[in-house]
Amino acid sequence: MARRRYLIAYDIADPARLRRVCRVMEAYGQRLQYSVFLCDLSKLELVRWRADVHEVIDYGEDSVVMIDLGPEGAAASVTQLGRPRDLPKSGPAII
Amino acid sequence: MARRRYLIAYDIADPARLRRVCRVMEAYGQRLQYSVFLCDLSKLELVRWRADVHEVIDYGEDSVVMIDLGPEGAAASVTQLGRPRDLPKSGPAII
Repeated sequence: MARRRYLIAYDIADPARLRRVCRVMEAYGQRLQYSVFLCDLSKLELVRWRADVHEVIDYGEDSVVMIDLGPEGAAASVTQLGRPRDLPKSGPAII
Repeated sequence: MARRRYLIAYDIADPARLRRVCRVMEAYGQRLQYSVFLCDLSKLELVRWRADVHEVIDYGEDSVVMIDLGPEGAAASVTQLGRPRDLPKSGPAII
C-alpha cells in the first residue's frame, strides 16, 4: 500500500475539541510536537482522516494545516534541534 | 537570491524562552499557527536563523523541528482546514 508522509499541525480554540483532535491524530500518526504530527497515510487513510477531523473542528475558530512531504520512505527530512522525538516507522496505529 | 521554504515548529518549555523564540521566528518568517512558521530562507539566512535560535533554546528541554519543503515558489503546498492564514510572499522581514 503506497503511503505519503504528511505533516499535520493544528490550533484548536476549544479544550474539549482539542482533546478530540488529539485522539484522532494519535490514531493516524506520530506526535512530533505538542500540536504537530507526522502521518504516513494511503489515499484511503487520508480520506478517513479528513472525515474524522471534519467531525470535530469548528471551521470558524480552529485551524488545521496539512503539508504533503512526499512518498513514505523518501519524504522531506526532519531536522530536530533540542529534545528529539521518534519519527513514525510506518502507517497509522489504528485504522 | 535563491531561497528554500522551511516549516519550523517548536515546543519551548519556558515562557520567557518562548517569547524570545517567537521574536526570532517573526524576524525570519510568517506564522502559520501558534508555534508553527513558514520561512523562505537563503543559505546565509538559514545559518543566521540557526545561530539566533541556538542562543535561545535549552537543548535539554526545548524542541525545534525544521522541514525543508523545497525551493521557494515550488515548495510543498499547504492545505488549510478551518481558519486560513496568509502564506509568506517572500523572504524574511528583517535580516
